Amino acid sequence: MDIKKEALKLHEEKRGKVEIKSKVRLENREDLSLAYTPGVGEVCKKISENKDDVYRYTNKGNTVAIISDGTAVLGLGDIGPEAAMPVMEGKAVIFKEFAGIDAIPIVLDSTDIDEIVTVIKSIAPSFGGINLEDIKAPKCFVIEKRLKEELNIPVFHDDQHGTAVVVGAALINALKIVNKKIDKIKIVVNGAGSAGVAIVKFLLNLGAKNITVCDIEGILHSNYPNINDAQKELVKLTKSENKHGNLTDALKGADLFIGVSVGNIVTKEMLKNMNKDFICFPLANPVPEIHPELAKEAGAKVVGSGLSNLPNQINNALAFPGLFKGILKHKNVQFDYEMLTAAAEALASVVKDYELTPDYIIPSVFNKEVVNKVSEAVSKVASKK
Amino acid sequence: MDIKKEALKLHEEKRGKVEIKSKVRLENREDLSLAYTPGVGEVCKKISENKDDVYRYTNKGNTVAIISDGTAVLGLGDIGPEAAMPVMEGKAVIFKEFAGIDAIPIVLDSTDIDEIVTVIKSIAPSFGGINLEDIKAPKCFVIEKRLKEELNIPVFHDDQHGTAVVVGAALINALKIVNKKIDKIKIVVNGAGSAGVAIVKFLLNLGAKNITVCDIEGILHSNYPNINDAQKELVKLTKSENKHGNLTDALKGADLFIGVSVGNIVTKEMLKNMNKDFICFPLANPVPEIHPELAKEAGAKVVGSGLSNLPNQINNALAFPGLFKGILKHKNVQFDYEMLTAAAEALASVVKDYELTPDYIIPSVFNKEVVNKVSEAVSKVASKK
Repeated sequence: MDIKKEALKLHEEKRGKVEIKSKVRLENREDLSLAYTPGVGEVCKKISENKDDVYRYTNKGNTVAIISDGTAVLGLGDIGPEAAMPVMEGKAVIFKEFAGIDAIPIVLDSTDIDEIVTVIKSIAPSFGGINLEDIKAPKCFVIEKRLKEELNIPVFHDDQHGTAVVVGAALINALKIVNKKIDKIKIVVNGAGSAGVAIVKFLLNLGAKNITVCDIEGILHSNYPNINDAQKELVKLTKSENKHGNLTDALKGADLFIGVSVGNIVTKEMLKNMNKDFICFPLANPVPEIHPELAKEAGAKVVGSGLSNLPNQINNALAFPGLFKGILKHKNVQFDYEMLTAAAEALASVVKDYELTPDYIIPSVFNKEVVNKVSEAVSKVASKK
Repeated sequence: MDIKKEALKLHEEKRGKVEIKSKVRLENREDLSLAYTPGVGEVCKKISENKDDVYRYTNKGNTVAIISDGTAVLGLGDIGPEAAMPVMEGKAVIFKEFAGIDAIPIVLDSTDIDEIVTVIKSIAPSFGGINLEDIKAPKCFVIEKRLKEELNIPVFHDDQHGTAVVVGAALINALKIVNKKIDKIKIVVNGAGSAGVAIVKFLLNLGAKNITVCDIEGILHSNYPNINDAQKELVKLTKSENKHGNLTDALKGADLFIGVSVGNIVTKEMLKNMNKDFICFPLANPVPEIHPELAKEAGAKVVGSGLSNLPNQINNALAFPGLFKGILKHKNVQFDYEMLTAAAEALASVVKDYELTPDYIIPSVFNKEVVNKVSEAVSKVASKK
């Protein structure tokens, strides 16, 4: 199948991937008088008396806005809001089909932090949650932080935390196979954008002690060129102030490589100095940092990538539907590390220990257990907040 | 049926009235690779090369945002964004069921003109059109004007123009029954809010020459207390600078009363000095300015109201679905009086001359011909822009 051609054909035939469906009948005057005027007035009145009743009488509580400014779309970069729409519609399909959540694609003709925050805060009353998507680093960190502080509905930047949760789950299971402990391994993360920053923080939270972060100019350190605030924080958290060298240097003696950068920048040679039974997650998409087959040839014991036609696909769709399904059961709760950790552990647990193999560390996105386990784990933590 | 009770029950059972539906399958890896990564990347690329392709490959062209700040909801007034949601969801149901249009309810936690304009401009790339709803006058006029100037998708304030079109259609047919001409009749409009202002302008556009506008303090004139810019414009347009008096005075010798104000403020006595065969449209909802039965007793030849259980329901749902269906077939076009006039004439024409009676001047909202005739008329005008 020529995926590019077929994808264009599908999108053109359907003219997009989501539509609105009415939950009520509208066949006669009586239907209209209940769904619209005059009956609807009574419903409005109830909510005006108690704002929280909006969750009881409208779809707000099951609706998530998928919001992007189109500045960091897939591997394509800053392609603008219109060109980001197909991705947002695709996520909306996944939200609905996997978790029954009604997600609305909203792309923004603004790239300014203050304006984006203003816009999202303004439209927030319509939604039960906000899924930020494909917004460039480092501004994505600022936008997310401000919205989490200023809104009472959950705000989630999927490129950061969705990726981190799935990587965390894959790592939990991969470590069982190589029989190593997270606090003892040396980890190298290449790519200090939104995913890289979030993965590092999440792995530290899971107990990792030794992480080296690289970006395009090599290992991140105090005097790294044009280093941003989020990256400075990583340097501090990973105690890398005085580290130096390039990615090849960093990989020497490492037990885990995580790539969230660009395609084809890692060679077999570079991996050959890694530790015995190393784990390799080259996640750049659609072209990974090194092809999984080559990584295996270089000695990787466990390999996971973003490729859907190979084993161990590390795909955000394993996380965000269940994360939102779990948190939407509660009000006035924000995602935190406790929830993300519970989600990663729940996702890992879908693959039973006796099923684990180097080629099966993470379940398929079509495994129905995934969304249930993740959402239950998240809901359990959220209920205690 | 206890409408209030039943409406609450329906809204609570369904938890809102609209949901998202996927237009594509998502059953296996191949489906996912077409609707989402990696296939979707090709679609994004196409649109990034030619922004207009967003209409070809996404649902933008069939999607309308229904936007309210909750400041003028039904007869309830400024009840806030959350409490406005049920109305917006109701309109979304009507858009879909009557015209196949996917409409997204968006309520705003902003009441400031500049902020509302900023927010709507920012989210505009997601939508094929903007339906403003239940925004207080006079700021609704400013917001609509600025958005029409600054956006390249159609912007429409339904409380203004939807109402005006349906009133216009009803009037076209009512005049046939009383055998009078629009340029010869004396018209009184009570209520100089969003609907009143738009109705007056639209009737002038249809050829009316003699209109008196009243608001709570009586006839609008140059020194009317707290008169706003839109009302000042009406005074000028209707040459009422030096008119004086109350609604009772205004009604003397009038051929048409249009009420877009509040319930129960007109008595039979007040109508008794109107001209022979006068027309009466008391449109306040759910309680009209005078009950249609009383208006008839006072001598009205033709009566139309907002009540769904009586003949001649003047309901915006007769206009907005077809108006948007017609204009969405075109790009870079804004609604104008030529389109609104074509829509009113098309709506009036659904009732054939041989079918016309005082109790049947306007079709039912469930008449399938309505949306087709209105949309064709609008599309025809739009195609020439």
